[in-house]
Formats: sequence, structure tokens, C-alpha cells
Amino acid sequence: MSHSHYDEARVRRSFANQPFMATIGAVLTAVAPGEVEIEMPTAHGVRQQHGFVHGGVVGSLADSACGFAALSVAAPDSGVLTTEFKCNFLAPSVGEKLIARGSIIKAGRTLTLTEARIYGVAEGKERLCAHMTATIMTVQGRAGIAD
Amino acid sequence: MSHSHYDEARVRRSFANQPFMATIGAVLTAVAPGEVEIEMPTAHGVRQQHGFVHGGVVGSLADSACGFAALSVAAPDSGVLTTEFKCNFLAPSVGEKLIARGSIIKAGRTLTLTEARIYGVAEGKERLCAHMTATIMTVQGRAGIAD
Amino acid sequence: MSHSHYDEARVRRSFANQPFMATIGAVLTAVAPGEVEIEMPTAHGVRQQHGFVHGGVVGSLADSACGFAALSVAAPDSGVLTTEFKCNFLAPSVGEKLIARGSIIKAGRTLTLTEARIYGVAEGKERLCAHMTATIMTVQGRAGIAD
Amino acid sequence: MSHSHYDEARVRRSFANQPFMATIGAVLTAVAPGEVEIEMPTAHGVRQQHGFVHGGVVGSLADSACGFAALSVAAPDSGVLTTEFKCNFLAPSVGEKLIARGSIIKAGRTLTLTEARIYGVAEGKERLCAHMTATIMTVQGRAGIAD
Repeated sequence: MSHSHYDEARVRRSFANQPFMATIGAVLTAVAPGEVEIEMPTAHGVRQQHGFVHGGVVGSLADSACGFAALSVAAPDSGVLTTEFKCNFLAPSVGEKLIARGSIIKAGRTLTLTEARIYGVAEGKERLCAHMTATIMTVQGRAGIAD
Repeated sequence: MSHSHYDEARVRRSFANQPFMATIGAVLTAVAPGEVEIEMPTAHGVRQQHGFVHGGVVGSLADSACGFAALSVAAPDSGVLTTEFKCNFLAPSVGEKLIARGSIIKAGRTLTLTEARIYGVAEGKERLCAHMTATIMTVQGRAGIAD
Repeated sequence: MSHSHYDEARVRRSFANQPFMATIGAVLTAVAPGEVEIEMPTAHGVRQQHGFVHGGVVGSLADSACGFAALSVAAPDSGVLTTEFKCNFLAPSVGEKLIARGSIIKAGRTLTLTEARIYGVAEGKERLCAHMTATIMTVQGRAGIAD
Repeated sequence: MSHSHYDEARVRRSFANQPFMATIGAVLTAVAPGEVEIEMPTAHGVRQQHGFVHGGVVGSLADSACGFAALSVAAPDSGVLTTEFKCNFLAPSVGEKLIARGSIIKAGRTLTLTEARIYGVAEGKERLCAHMTATIMTVQGRAGIAD
């Protein structure tokens, strides 16, 4: 994968433009070429009926981690859109916070395959609780789809 | 699929116990044996950087629609957990509100395959914007996992 | 979905050009706009270690059913490629033969979402044993990718 | 993941009992705790209409790589079954042979998440052409499901 387009500021700016990340209290904690890390405290408002973080919230963190991993190395005049993701739930998503780490499996001209691993953190110890693969489409010249 | 366990009140009670559904303003608008419908206005706080509803929110609605479709016919002393879902994004998730309709493809003793279709509604017209299949696991006798 | 491009002969010709379908004894038994049906006897050579049809063979039938459903209504000068599929296995794939029925969930300019249901047939009775959703990409002007 | 149950001979015996692997000329080339490697020449009989290896065959290699990676560390009296897989196709599956490498993402008591990467090999050079994640269920005491 080419890292020649790597632009950390662009990723941070685009993340800040996602109102939903603020709604769930998610913060971008690390950016590198083709890799990002997002954290979120497990507040009451993101939970489901058993007290775990809602699977859709886990999926949201993973989707964002995948999309921004792809965006971190995308051509300057392009935007990214998720075309599909699969998320496998491996353990209850509990702990003080969740960490989602996204990376690129294979970058293509139009479609980039990415993956994310989501960890529940309790007393400083990480436990893998979900795994996602997501296909991110790079679009150019489409009104409203930049970054 | 057996509908002998159908219990609408149980589905409505469990849905009301998901804090995250309240966070995003999602409402359970219909329940039938093996089928549920959920609606959510497309408020600013659920959007991503291009102004569409965040893919993770779309996934959250779909996941809940799938899970509650399975719960609607699950044995009384059991709970449901999502083990995996795949979501395909077919069109931008825009409009005044989104509607997610979940149903059962095949109910099994332990694993039930479900699907959900998510529609963006603009000026009263529905447009399919995403599709999910989800595997829901029925668990019994596990502390904290009921309904 | 537009059916204006429907061309049954094109689907039958393309199917006949898949050596692997002959290898596993699969036959195209029905074609309609956006829909195809494929059958395969459950011969010894397509089985796994427990005597069921191998999951990959089930996936092959489903993938072909999805791809030809998309091809049946694709523009005349285009070809189709699978970009991803998910297959859920719901019951052992046993019986005298398997039937795969593919159809279109949503046709797009570039990406078309399709689904297939695979049934095991024993003594004339069908039982759903697997479900697939597949994303089919329509490509134009790419050497070697026609039909 | 516990490797205490690792049994290479068991994996080789079970692989040899899959008639379909022989049908497509697939060979088990390496086994380690939680990891296997399978190779297959790209013969005419495994291809689709464009001359690439059929997506279902790629999925078959990946599914077997995932299943045997799980079996390699499964309890002695258990068997493994695939409950779902997703396969992303990243490049045409061409070359003299394909190599599928399967490994375990997280082993659980009942469900184990695995992944496989499939490479096309041309003139000794490997190129990633597909990626799978698969959920493998470990079953015990079910007639006919051993290894």
C-alpha cells in the first residue's frame, strides 16, 4: 500500500466532523499510515438490555476505525464510504472503555479491505470482544463526499 | 418456525431496556411474531462527516430489528445475543427518518438467522438503503442474559 | 430494477462456460429476469469428512446463483465479478440433490446486492440449509471480463 | 488459546477424508497449532467463465483452511462445523497455484473465529487475492460429527 498520501491532520479533521462519534463519547487516540485507534467510555447511554455495550455501537467504533484507516492513505481529492462490513462478537463488550484498532488488509484503487479489533478494557487489561472486516470505497468527484 | 412463544409485551419491555435506542431516538413501531419495525429520526447527532446517518447507527437499528425479531418467538426463559452480522450499504442513509424492518430467515434451537432492511424515508417515500443478515444466539440459564 | 437488458441465452451461455460447474455436476435449471435456479446431485466427490456437501461447494452454488441473477439483467457490454459474499449454514447440506435459488435485493450501477437460498432435497422435500448475500460488481471495458 | 489438544495426525486424517479436496486437487502442505496451509493447482476444472479460479473454489480452500485451523486445537472428542463465512475477493485468483493460509483469531468453547488469506502464486511470487473470516462451531457428542 502506498503511504505517499498519508495526512494525519486530514483524518483528525474528518473524525471531528462526525457528530455521532461525539454522541457516543468516542475519541481518536492514535493515527498512523493505514492505522487508527479509537476509544470510548462504556457509558450508560451506549448499552443494551443486558448492560453490555450495544452491538451496533461496537460496530460503529469498528466501522469508524476501518474507514479512517482507509482515509489515512487515500488520495487527497477523494472521500471514503463503507460498502459493507461484517462484525463477529466474541465476548461481552464490557469494561471501563472500549478500544477499536483499525488497519488495512489490502488497499485497492476503488475498494480497500480493512479490519478492526475491538477490546474491552477492565482494570487496564484488554480483552478482544469483537472483530470486523469492512470494505471501504474510495470515491472521487462526487459532490459532498470528501474526506 | 414456532410462534407458540410469541410475547409482544416481552419485546416491548426489552426494547425499552436498551438505553442506546433512547440515545439515538429509536422507537419500536411494530411487533408481530418473528417481525419488528423500528424508526429513528435522522437527527444531527447520529450523522457522519458527509451528513448521512453513520453506518454504525444504521447497523445498530438493523441489529436491534434482527435481535428483537428473534426474541419475539424465543422460549420464555431465554435471552438473545448477536454473534455476527453483515451489513451492506446500498444508498446514502438520508431522509427525515430511517425505518428498519427485521424478520427471521430460519429459527434454530441455538442459532437463528435473521435479516433486516433499512429504508430512508423522504417526503413519505421509502428507499432501501441497507441490508443486514445477523446470527442471533439463544442462551438459557446464563446470569444476566434474559430477554 | 430495470429488466430491459434481460437475456436468457446470455446467462445460459455464460453458465456453460464455467468449467467448475461441470466439475461438480451443477446444472442451470431455471432463468428469469433477476432470478436463477441451479441444481446439483450430492455426489461423493463434493462432500466433506462428515458426508455433508462441503461448505465451499454450497458456497459455490450460491455464488453462481447470485452472480447469474445479476448477469441476467446486466448491460449487454458488461461482465460481472463477485466482490464479497457471506454464507450462513443453517442445517447439514444433505439429500439427493441441492437447489440454489438466486435473486437480486438491489441492483446498482456498479454494485448489485444479491441473495441465494440453498435447499437440500430428500424424497422430494426441500429443507433450507444455507443462505448467502453477495455483492456483484458490474464491470465494463475490462479485457477478458464479459458476461 | 490452548494448544494442549494439538494433534497434527488428526488434522491430516480428517483432511484426507474430504473427498471434495481431492476433487479440486487441494493438498494440505503445512500444519501447526492453530494454523494450516493448503495448496491447489489452478486446473481448468476449477475455473469460472473468465478463466479465474471460481470464487466458490477460493471459498472452499479458505473454508477448509479455517476449519482445520480450528480442528488442530479442538478437544479430542469433538468435531467442527462452519456456521458462517464471509469472503472478500481482492484480485483475480490466477497463477499456477493458490495457497490458503488459515489461522485462529479467537478460540472459544463453542464458537471459534478464524481467518484465511488466499494467495495466487505466479512465477514464485505470491499475491493476496482473497480474505475470509469464518465462525467454526465445536460440537461434542453429535453422531457422525467427529474431527
